Amino acid sequence: MEQQTIERRIRERLTGQHFMHHIGFNLVQIDAGYIVGEMPLQGFSFQQLGFVHGGITATVADIVAGFAAYTLTPIDKHVVTGELKISYFRPGKGDFLKAIGRVVKAGKTLHFCEAEVWVGNASEKEKLVLIAKATTTMVVIE
Amino acid sequence: MEQQTIERRIRERLTGQHFMHHIGFNLVQIDAGYIVGEMPLQGFSFQQLGFVHGGITATVADIVAGFAAYTLTPIDKHVVTGELKISYFRPGKGDFLKAIGRVVKAGKTLHFCEAEVWVGNASEKEKLVLIAKATTTMVVIE
Amino acid sequence: MEQQTIERRIRERLTGQHFMHHIGFNLVQIDAGYIVGEMPLQGFSFQQLGFVHGGITATVADIVAGFAAYTLTPIDKHVVTGELKISYFRPGKGDFLKAIGRVVKAGKTLHFCEAEVWVGNASEKEKLVLIAKATTTMVVIE
Amino acid sequence: MEQQTIERRIRERLTGQHFMHHIGFNLVQIDAGYIVGEMPLQGFSFQQLGFVHGGITATVADIVAGFAAYTLTPIDKHVVTGELKISYFRPGKGDFLKAIGRVVKAGKTLHFCEAEVWVGNASEKEKLVLIAKATTTMVVIE
Repeated sequence: MEQQTIERRIRERLTGQHFMHHIGFNLVQIDAGYIVGEMPLQGFSFQQLGFVHGGITATVADIVAGFAAYTLTPIDKHVVTGELKISYFRPGKGDFLKAIGRVVKAGKTLHFCEAEVWVGNASEKEKLVLIAKATTTMVVIE
Repeated sequence: MEQQTIERRIRERLTGQHFMHHIGFNLVQIDAGYIVGEMPLQGFSFQQLGFVHGGITATVADIVAGFAAYTLTPIDKHVVTGELKISYFRPGKGDFLKAIGRVVKAGKTLHFCEAEVWVGNASEKEKLVLIAKATTTMVVIE
Repeated sequence: MEQQTIERRIRERLTGQHFMHHIGFNLVQIDAGYIVGEMPLQGFSFQQLGFVHGGITATVADIVAGFAAYTLTPIDKHVVTGELKISYFRPGKGDFLKAIGRVVKAGKTLHFCEAEVWVGNASEKEKLVLIAKATTTMVVIE
Repeated sequence: MEQQTIERRIRERLTGQHFMHHIGFNLVQIDAGYIVGEMPLQGFSFQQLGFVHGGITATVADIVAGFAAYTLTPIDKHVVTGELKISYFRPGKGDFLKAIGRVVKAGKTLHFCEAEVWVGNASEKEKLVLIAKATTTMVVIE
């Protein structure tokens, strides 16, 4: 698929991504097998110790890995998450999240993907800290 | 710990659980090593195909497993998620989620936990469908 | 499939299971979606601290989960492990291993399975200790 | 720790690694947080379809990740595998395996590690194929 088609397909799917919009996550880069997204952290993003909630971290990892898989999926098919494992390296403190998803091994039925989640402060966007890594099995469906 | 102390500790921690409140998830049963919670599904809970977003499913699995671990953690310690793996068995369609978390093996440093996520309709609460299972490593911290 | 066919198919596949024979693992129960196997622990089974090697534990978990999936797979298809996660609850000390595999959710393309690995002493076969649990995604192939 | 101490510690631990010797796996590179090992594939290494047994792949992933973690662990402590997840990208066909383990995030209690397993033919050692990737949580113990 060419870049333009990839972007159009992803943009179309985004309109139905209610939970993604609900938490304020946006895609900032869309390439074949590679997706980057960001979201500002707000009051609701944190858990009781003042760190990013692990559920948000898992959600953005799932989204970027899923869309990365979708860019490599035939135009008449969909992709769903079969399983996801996420390791939390450090508590996340900052004012925005950046998530990077990539396809490590594409296949006809399964795409194996990885995602990284970084946290930072908008005032120093180059000083990010890696807080989690995820691996997923994405399943191609009709 | 006795049941009353367990409940009081959990209730205290809940006040800072902003993301959990944000998605409308509530605990309905609190026992030693065993937690049940529920949430209504609303517009924001779904992804583009009309099913519960996997990020929500992972979030509620993480919450019930984490609180189940917390009930078995000494009173001066906290517990954080080291890693979580979730397998998505079926797409989730319904109007509420039920999540059950339990500690499978408690330890001094690590608690191994499991969670199940069920979906159903409020009108037929006994007819639930299992949509996902998760296993986690919870880490006891100072 | 009826019980007799299931057993025959599994027995046929066993002949090529060189690594399984190499470590001395045998199936002792074969049912639809449910497999039990055992192996004696010998010198080679241990690591440097005198406990069962995690690689053996993972291997027997993979075998029983894989065969459990195979019992539910159409006769002209095969099944391979897509991914496996194993949590090690306790160090394993004893003179034999028992592994139990079951299919938790069967599907056309994927079977989600679980396995438990127990350790014990042949002199007291009823006193087993659970040392690990695994979850897997098994993939049906042509 | 300096390189010489790291190597000496690893070499000492290797003497008790019975299962690792049993399958013919050897370490070929030992650095702080980074381990490489290799093994020839023989008759016992294969399963019924003629591919490397997933149990062997998981075993070598566990070994290199575990030793990588051990190089970063204080001299009076040990390290055990808390959990391991492995994704199988492709069936493995060849005459030797190469496994690479690295620590992604070191900590006081936990080391998060990754491993890659490659397969190849001894006659063309530079043409390796990646067959699996693993992520692990290694636990520091007294």
